Amino acid sequence: MNFLIASVSAEPHIDHAPFILAGVLLSIIAIYLASKIGGELVNKLGLPPVLGELIAGVIVGISALKIIIFPESGTDGTDSLIMMVLQSTGGLPASEVTEVFAQISEVVLVLAELGVIILLFEIGLESDLKQLMGVGVQALVVAVIGVVLPFVAGTVGLIFIFGMPTIPSIFAGAALTATSIGITSRVLSELGKLTTTEGQIILGAAVTDDVLGIIILAVVASLAKTGTVDLTNLLVLILSAIGFLGGAILLGKFVNKVYVSLASGLKTRGEIITPALIFAFSMAYLGNAIHLEGILGSFAAGLVLDETDQRNELQKQVVPVADLLVPIFFVTVGAKTNIGVLNPTIEANREGLIIAAFLIMVAIIGKLATGLGAFGKPGINRLAIGIGMIPRGEVGLVFAGIGSSSGILSESLNAAIVAMVIVTTFVAPPMLRLAFGTDSDSVDVELASKES
Amino acid sequence: MNFLIASVSAEPHIDHAPFILAGVLLSIIAIYLASKIGGELVNKLGLPPVLGELIAGVIVGISALKIIIFPESGTDGTDSLIMMVLQSTGGLPASEVTEVFAQISEVVLVLAELGVIILLFEIGLESDLKQLMGVGVQALVVAVIGVVLPFVAGTVGLIFIFGMPTIPSIFAGAALTATSIGITSRVLSELGKLTTTEGQIILGAAVTDDVLGIIILAVVASLAKTGTVDLTNLLVLILSAIGFLGGAILLGKFVNKVYVSLASGLKTRGEIITPALIFAFSMAYLGNAIHLEGILGSFAAGLVLDETDQRNELQKQVVPVADLLVPIFFVTVGAKTNIGVLNPTIEANREGLIIAAFLIMVAIIGKLATGLGAFGKPGINRLAIGIGMIPRGEVGLVFAGIGSSSGILSESLNAAIVAMVIVTTFVAPPMLRLAFGTDSDSVDVELASKES
Repeated sequence: MNFLIASVSAEPHIDHAPFILAGVLLSIIAIYLASKIGGELVNKLGLPPVLGELIAGVIVGISALKIIIFPESGTDGTDSLIMMVLQSTGGLPASEVTEVFAQISEVVLVLAELGVIILLFEIGLESDLKQLMGVGVQALVVAVIGVVLPFVAGTVGLIFIFGMPTIPSIFAGAALTATSIGITSRVLSELGKLTTTEGQIILGAAVTDDVLGIIILAVVASLAKTGTVDLTNLLVLILSAIGFLGGAILLGKFVNKVYVSLASGLKTRGEIITPALIFAFSMAYLGNAIHLEGILGSFAAGLVLDETDQRNELQKQVVPVADLLVPIFFVTVGAKTNIGVLNPTIEANREGLIIAAFLIMVAIIGKLATGLGAFGKPGINRLAIGIGMIPRGEVGLVFAGIGSSSGILSESLNAAIVAMVIVTTFVAPPMLRLAFGTDSDSVDVELASKES
Repeated sequence: MNFLIASVSAEPHIDHAPFILAGVLLSIIAIYLASKIGGELVNKLGLPPVLGELIAGVIVGISALKIIIFPESGTDGTDSLIMMVLQSTGGLPASEVTEVFAQISEVVLVLAELGVIILLFEIGLESDLKQLMGVGVQALVVAVIGVVLPFVAGTVGLIFIFGMPTIPSIFAGAALTATSIGITSRVLSELGKLTTTEGQIILGAAVTDDVLGIIILAVVASLAKTGTVDLTNLLVLILSAIGFLGGAILLGKFVNKVYVSLASGLKTRGEIITPALIFAFSMAYLGNAIHLEGILGSFAAGLVLDETDQRNELQKQVVPVADLLVPIFFVTVGAKTNIGVLNPTIEANREGLIIAAFLIMVAIIGKLATGLGAFGKPGINRLAIGIGMIPRGEVGLVFAGIGSSSGILSESLNAAIVAMVIVTTFVAPPMLRLAFGTDSDSVDVELASKES
């Protein structure tokens, strides 16, 4: 009936709603097909499925098939396969393509954001707060090494080896700092290593990294904008980060009680999952509102609810919800990645590629070294921890995006950052598989805690 | 981090993405809170929870709190509570409110559409194709009576009692025809009556009604636009409706085989639900593309997959997905409903209210009479069938919307149709509860099929 409405009210203005729905449906179908095909094929090779989702995303995205593309890559939608289908089978007029394309993209991107929020909520549920606190000091050390080393080595190298100006060098150095929680936690979960000591150190360090990355971004951005650092803002940000995560953990017991009484008291459908989603989304909003990230909020929410009696049933119910939304996140991460910047036959890419080779080296070595920070746990797999911190994913792309939109980064430096993100993101999952696979002595926490 | 991006790139243009995500999160939180509070309270009174979700939707919507409102009601978003929160706590500049409001609304409406698509998929899974075909003739008769009676009585009454012109009268008559599948099926499911003979007749008749309603809308709209009926278009529509539903059922066996081999062959997460969602969304897109409705497609998809071995596990996994999305549909239906048109103290409403009283009478009696069409099933609850067909829900509002945007309907006639939709929608759930509750002889199909 929707399409008819569009045709009936065609004279005054064209109703976009039915086209948006149709385009979102097609996008989701394409994303699911890509994620399943990619995930299954890569799984057959013994690699984590998420790598397949990312690669499949690249194939359906801006770099190849242009099925899942977004306005931010500079397209107006006329080269989008989905828009062509809507024009030929859905009766979408050519004049409306650009606007409808933007609206569809907006919805798909929000679904992807909800996907990573749910992913971190699920990871939080799978994690154990006590266990995470038990490796807190190690995680902090790992995080700090993994931020300081790549930042200093990257910035100094760009200034002295490549003769770049200071501000862009600092910016590129900052882009090397933050580990992608989403990718690294999903790989750990797929390898069944999330609840090992190594897994929890990586997770704790990645979360800390993310907070440090946000603080660095605030500093670098204000430096780039005004030439000075706004110390008040900085202090507010640091205090709110500490207050938010600390507050969530302290309030955990109270939230637990409320949740348990709700989940057992409610008599209508969704009694387990709806209150949990309300909590997760509220924390995500709060995380966003105090200038942190939504995913930190939903991770904290999952961590807190983890200790409730309803945990098992809740975890079971979150799985299909995650299956609905999470692939949208990973496929769009791949789809947005333009691997064209890696093509060495294009003259303009070469300078970027040389810088990229340097950044990639710094990015990998700088994080591999973090394994050294995992002290006091005998028999620990330091290599796995270092590798687990490598993928930069979306966080690095955020730096690249801001850098290029604000004009701080030259085209080649921007391309080099994107290349660094691509390589670190795609190289980490198979390496992590190997590092854990060859290591049969990996300390399993359940065993370890029984021994102690 | 998202909010920082916005503030960094503030000069060239303001990035709306973080505000859209924040607004969508707030909207979803408000919707869940409303649906749970409303559903639980109404459930305590022994009524179907969906009624509570609808009423809670009215309270948070355009009629009262203005938390969940949409541009189609004529607002620019400055009176939206969520936009005010985004301005005060999220740093949204006043200049961007209207555009961001429109973008948030778009996403929420797509989520609601996905919700009703998933709802009908779930209803399809709960239904049994053989059982539905077993009551096919009765359902067809019930549907035809329920379309012809209100249409003729409404149109003739408006022309001869109220002296209205022919075209608007036909349009208003047509708005009386289609039963809301979403509301009626949810109520049946909540009462545990979906798989009774009555439930399946109502469901089959509501689906048929919907197809008939689409055909009538095509006729009436082309009549209103050009003064004539495009017979070719009409034929194409009828044939594609028959081909679509018939084809889905005929291809069912083949789809089943493919689905079963996929669900048992896939080795990565989501092996049960992802192929099912791909099928459901593809059918929804197809239903939309051939000018039917998306929900007919997902209903057919659920009906077909219903016969597979993986059914139980799939049904279990669809529940949390439905809990995520379906409340968004029902709360927004309530939120969009402006009950202001029912206020008799406003002078301008009075003419509309008198017409509304007539339309409501025709709408209720015309559908109650459909129970008479349920022949050949001894001991059947005819009253329940008639009541089950009463709610008009979103379909009636579509007529009202097209009628008012195309200028066919006068303001009072438009308000009368909206009032008719409100009353039939809100009155049916408690009536259905009563009709089934007092009737202990209701033929349970599982029993009936054992006897035969």
